[in-house]
Amino acid sequence: MTTDPTDRHYDRAFVRTFFTSPTAVEGEDDSAKMLRRAARLRGMEAPDVWVPDNEDATAPSMREEGAENVADVVAEHGADFPGEIHPRVVWHRDRPSARRDGFEQMHTIADPDRGAVDHVDGFVVPEVGDVDDWKKADEAMTVVEAEHGLEPGSLSMSVIVESGEAELAMGDLRAEMGKPSNNLERLFLLVDGEVDYTKDMRAMTPTGELPEWPELRHNTSRGASAAGLVAVDGPYDDIRDVDGYRERMRENRARGMTGIWSLTPTQVEVANTAPLPPVEGSWLFDAGGREVELDREDGRFVYDGDAVDLDREDGEYVLEAEGTERHLDEDGLREAILDRASYVPSLDDVVDSMEEFEAAKAAGRGAIAMTREATLVVDGVAVDVSTDRMWDEATYQAARTPIALFQDVHEHRPDQHDALEDRYGPAVVERALAVGD
Amino acid sequence: MTTDPTDRHYDRAFVRTFFTSPTAVEGEDDSAKMLRRAARLRGMEAPDVWVPDNEDATAPSMREEGAENVADVVAEHGADFPGEIHPRVVWHRDRPSARRDGFEQMHTIADPDRGAVDHVDGFVVPEVGDVDDWKKADEAMTVVEAEHGLEPGSLSMSVIVESGEAELAMGDLRAEMGKPSNNLERLFLLVDGEVDYTKDMRAMTPTGELPEWPELRHNTSRGASAAGLVAVDGPYDDIRDVDGYRERMRENRARGMTGIWSLTPTQVEVANTAPLPPVEGSWLFDAGGREVELDREDGRFVYDGDAVDLDREDGEYVLEAEGTERHLDEDGLREAILDRASYVPSLDDVVDSMEEFEAAKAAGRGAIAMTREATLVVDGVAVDVSTDRMWDEATYQAARTPIALFQDVHEHRPDQHDALEDRYGPAVVERALAVGD
Amino acid sequence: MTTDPTDRHYDRAFVRTFFTSPTAVEGEDDSAKMLRRAARLRGMEAPDVWVPDNEDATAPSMREEGAENVADVVAEHGADFPGEIHPRVVWHRDRPSARRDGFEQMHTIADPDRGAVDHVDGFVVPEVGDVDDWKKADEAMTVVEAEHGLEPGSLSMSVIVESGEAELAMGDLRAEMGKPSNNLERLFLLVDGEVDYTKDMRAMTPTGELPEWPELRHNTSRGASAAGLVAVDGPYDDIRDVDGYRERMRENRARGMTGIWSLTPTQVEVANTAPLPPVEGSWLFDAGGREVELDREDGRFVYDGDAVDLDREDGEYVLEAEGTERHLDEDGLREAILDRASYVPSLDDVVDSMEEFEAAKAAGRGAIAMTREATLVVDGVAVDVSTDRMWDEATYQAARTPIALFQDVHEHRPDQHDALEDRYGPAVVERALAVGD
Repeated sequence: MTTDPTDRHYDRAFVRTFFTSPTAVEGEDDSAKMLRRAARLRGMEAPDVWVPDNEDATAPSMREEGAENVADVVAEHGADFPGEIHPRVVWHRDRPSARRDGFEQMHTIADPDRGAVDHVDGFVVPEVGDVDDWKKADEAMTVVEAEHGLEPGSLSMSVIVESGEAELAMGDLRAEMGKPSNNLERLFLLVDGEVDYTKDMRAMTPTGELPEWPELRHNTSRGASAAGLVAVDGPYDDIRDVDGYRERMRENRARGMTGIWSLTPTQVEVANTAPLPPVEGSWLFDAGGREVELDREDGRFVYDGDAVDLDREDGEYVLEAEGTERHLDEDGLREAILDRASYVPSLDDVVDSMEEFEAAKAAGRGAIAMTREATLVVDGVAVDVSTDRMWDEATYQAARTPIALFQDVHEHRPDQHDALEDRYGPAVVERALAVGD
Repeated sequence: MTTDPTDRHYDRAFVRTFFTSPTAVEGEDDSAKMLRRAARLRGMEAPDVWVPDNEDATAPSMREEGAENVADVVAEHGADFPGEIHPRVVWHRDRPSARRDGFEQMHTIADPDRGAVDHVDGFVVPEVGDVDDWKKADEAMTVVEAEHGLEPGSLSMSVIVESGEAELAMGDLRAEMGKPSNNLERLFLLVDGEVDYTKDMRAMTPTGELPEWPELRHNTSRGASAAGLVAVDGPYDDIRDVDGYRERMRENRARGMTGIWSLTPTQVEVANTAPLPPVEGSWLFDAGGREVELDREDGRFVYDGDAVDLDREDGEYVLEAEGTERHLDEDGLREAILDRASYVPSLDDVVDSMEEFEAAKAAGRGAIAMTREATLVVDGVAVDVSTDRMWDEATYQAARTPIALFQDVHEHRPDQHDALEDRYGPAVVERALAVGD
Repeated sequence: MTTDPTDRHYDRAFVRTFFTSPTAVEGEDDSAKMLRRAARLRGMEAPDVWVPDNEDATAPSMREEGAENVADVVAEHGADFPGEIHPRVVWHRDRPSARRDGFEQMHTIADPDRGAVDHVDGFVVPEVGDVDDWKKADEAMTVVEAEHGLEPGSLSMSVIVESGEAELAMGDLRAEMGKPSNNLERLFLLVDGEVDYTKDMRAMTPTGELPEWPELRHNTSRGASAAGLVAVDGPYDDIRDVDGYRERMRENRARGMTGIWSLTPTQVEVANTAPLPPVEGSWLFDAGGREVELDREDGRFVYDGDAVDLDREDGEYVLEAEGTERHLDEDGLREAILDRASYVPSLDDVVDSMEEFEAAKAAGRGAIAMTREATLVVDGVAVDVSTDRMWDEATYQAARTPIALFQDVHEHRPDQHDALEDRYGPAVVERALAVGD
């Protein structure tokens, strides 16, 4: 029987974090120091996928030693590491010598005599080109597996998409993965690499900042969706800018790209947490084209900024925003405020809604209205709002994504159970694990 | 002779509205009540394409009855229905049983003994995967046609694009449609289905709102253009939000996607009207990054908002906007105002320009300047502006799109003739039908 | 040995400007007047690629004469013209007669007896369809080359991408360019043609302005990158709007599309200059969501707009922007200002950084911090800021793009040497030519 490419051939359905460490640093007593430090990460600071990086993060002259360091450190610490382990080796679509080096590095790391391969989930291959180049990397792994007596396809393959060719190749994966002369079913992550992609596309910005590349991220996410893989965004260089990192992840999730590269344990923690539903629900408010989160005060949600003015005059309300003034009665005001407001549900809210829909479905009802009520206070004027949202099977299915993510994390990351319980409380965690089956 | 895929194999070159109705509602005296109601729609409330929906809008347990209802109601009312009729059946790229059910539903509805098939223009197939899956749906129709003695290819096929696979498949249609072992020339509509697409892509937004998916809409529109098909956007859930619906359609038309799903007769009316050129021309004005339509007062166009301040001081003009102040003489002011202003032509204007260009071309001139003059009043200061736009063959051809749409509507929707004449007046309608040949 | 499609098969690695001239104007004493005028352009007003346009810019009845004019004028002036010469001929994916005419026009212009072909670098083919149509144009050139005894592949082929089919075809180039039955290695420029693309996609905007088509531009840039070609954007119609033209090019460069169509010698000059690094560095400042360039006054960089208010009150700073107020100490202020500021390096700055990194690399260091210090003055308050940016091999490689462009211009456009020296001074030019090897 043929396999469907959209069936996932690996454990993790979601990957939040992709954390790279140099494999060998020159001039240190222990060149594997950074690897050892990363191998000890646990809980929210430990990534879903740890990438001992024998490519860009490690000087070319240190990479032979780096491959041996990876084998040593993973042999020692791999069994206890809570995430998956996917070393990155060198590779280049245009340089046979780099491909030869990549083969040797994989061969070294996967050598059973070194004791690491049982804890190596796969390899990350950078700088791939079109799909025929992906097949060469796949073949290198097939040979490594055969020489080392490993099961064919047991090493997964993740690629860094950092060329126009690789971006185009993602459209061909479904057709290619089924072919008998390759083992491309081993594919796991599609990871964007915007720095080298920018170079490859010869793009320029005045300040040297990276372009946003929205189409690349869409195509990566779509390629992952169509081939049953997981999409991961590239590094966010400004490690001080936590808000910017969060905003980037928010945009990525709206594209179906849940994972992101992390450069520091702090970024790992932020990125492990960001895709989880919030602990408390909140209201967003459109204030002059900018969405702000309202302050919760005594159970009410307050907007105190300057972008929206609201006054009561002669029995009517005057709402001034974006340079125009509207005169409204009470119903008109409620509707105007509601148009600007939207609710961000907590994990608890999502579980509530799903449970309610599951009960309705069991009782033979296909669609129900979910009501949410709140008091919003704008410029000192309190407005009671109430929203109805119809839930049908499709709404329910779409709402399952964050829950599926939560369950995937809980299943594969026991080291994060405490953090999840601290964050949400044990009751919510338990209910979140039970819905959606 | 081979056929070119960009030749259109169906009557309508444009589809504005795609309106779905449940085929069988439980607990009603007449389970086909919603179908009967929809079948009686006429004029601007009647869609270009009516979709008796035997998939998501109808409970799974009711779908067998639903297929029979479709046959009954279309047999009774189909001859008089002013739009095309394209029932949606069940289908799923990953579930053979759904495909089997879809086949049976098509078989039932298209059975000549039931009397409906003469009024059924084709079927809508949801949840298609890559192009090989589209071929399975095509084959199901081919078999239905053969068993029922219908002309091969007489039933058109429209698909809902709601997976990454289907999005990718749209790039292959031209190459596949010519092949002898399929009848994919029967393709008609490419309809985006953003709810299930969002689920399939595993995308998440904080509020649960659907992502915008601009790349999907581009790819659907491009796929339709390259294969001679018609692109239609998915449902706009917030049926109260007419402005948002209009804005979505405006964006879609700028992508070449003229049609949109409609969930209610009111949405049908809005969406049938939105792509038609306006009755009156208007001026748009860039006020602090926001485009506003100027108020027409006594033949002048007035901006009274707060985002742009204009004063006359000591013989010069002071224009304050976006936090900067400019001092201008009369010519500078005219230019600054003109930079912020743009004109939206009425149907009458478009016809005028096309007639003028046609006359110039007949007289041997390849390019002419079209001048438009108006008085804009900003913050109480009147400014006479005049714009020149060069029209050449390319401008003329691009301007033809709204006229071609108008003519397509007029040709295929006699039930809307009165509405068009009420809206534009008979003289403008007549001239609009005559230009552009 | 096979050739890699991403190897470039032509001289210019970058093309800034694509300038079209009518080939024959009716009613003039000399119908080739416009060609002769263009052929005499030199320096920054002369384009990188000059396109005698025997298609849209020339009336259909004048095109036979136009082809002869091209041959005559290029024979006379081609040897001295500083840019490349690529005449555009007629072509259409749907009209065999247009293809036949295009063949004849190429045959005429490339006839060695007319003396022009030594100075003709290739032809521009408009209105291509899918890749099989590109092959027909390629074949037409192959036949022209054979009949005229020219070396196979010596004429390059550039296409105008102005249909959905052509947009899709750009994804197939790599696979098709290697095939033995075509000479598609002759491909050079991929040029977007948004006017006809808009018509082909049947897109509409209220004012008749062209849509932005970001996805088309991405796909063209990616197609060029993957196949070793050069991407060029289409015409910018509003020739008065120099700021808009510059902004369009800035966006394009962030997509990897360096070149743009130019309609006038003034546009050529603007577009030849725009992609070159600035002479002086400058600071950008985010003022209420709008990036403004700070004024340089006495070596300090000053923001005097209204969008950000900064006051000192009771020993702390109050920063008001986007409707919110923040109270900050000195460090907090410095960070807040830094978050809003970014530096645009001059050519001199880029060369400095590259030299510094090259020296560090030679000394065995893989990454160094580049520090930049400045005094920014916001609302009268002076703030000393200092930014550190890590440079590693990847940063260095990405920074090379503007330098590679500069070197490409210097190598191929000796007629612009004076302009470059006037602009930057000879010392900076010399250093810019020496870095990066």
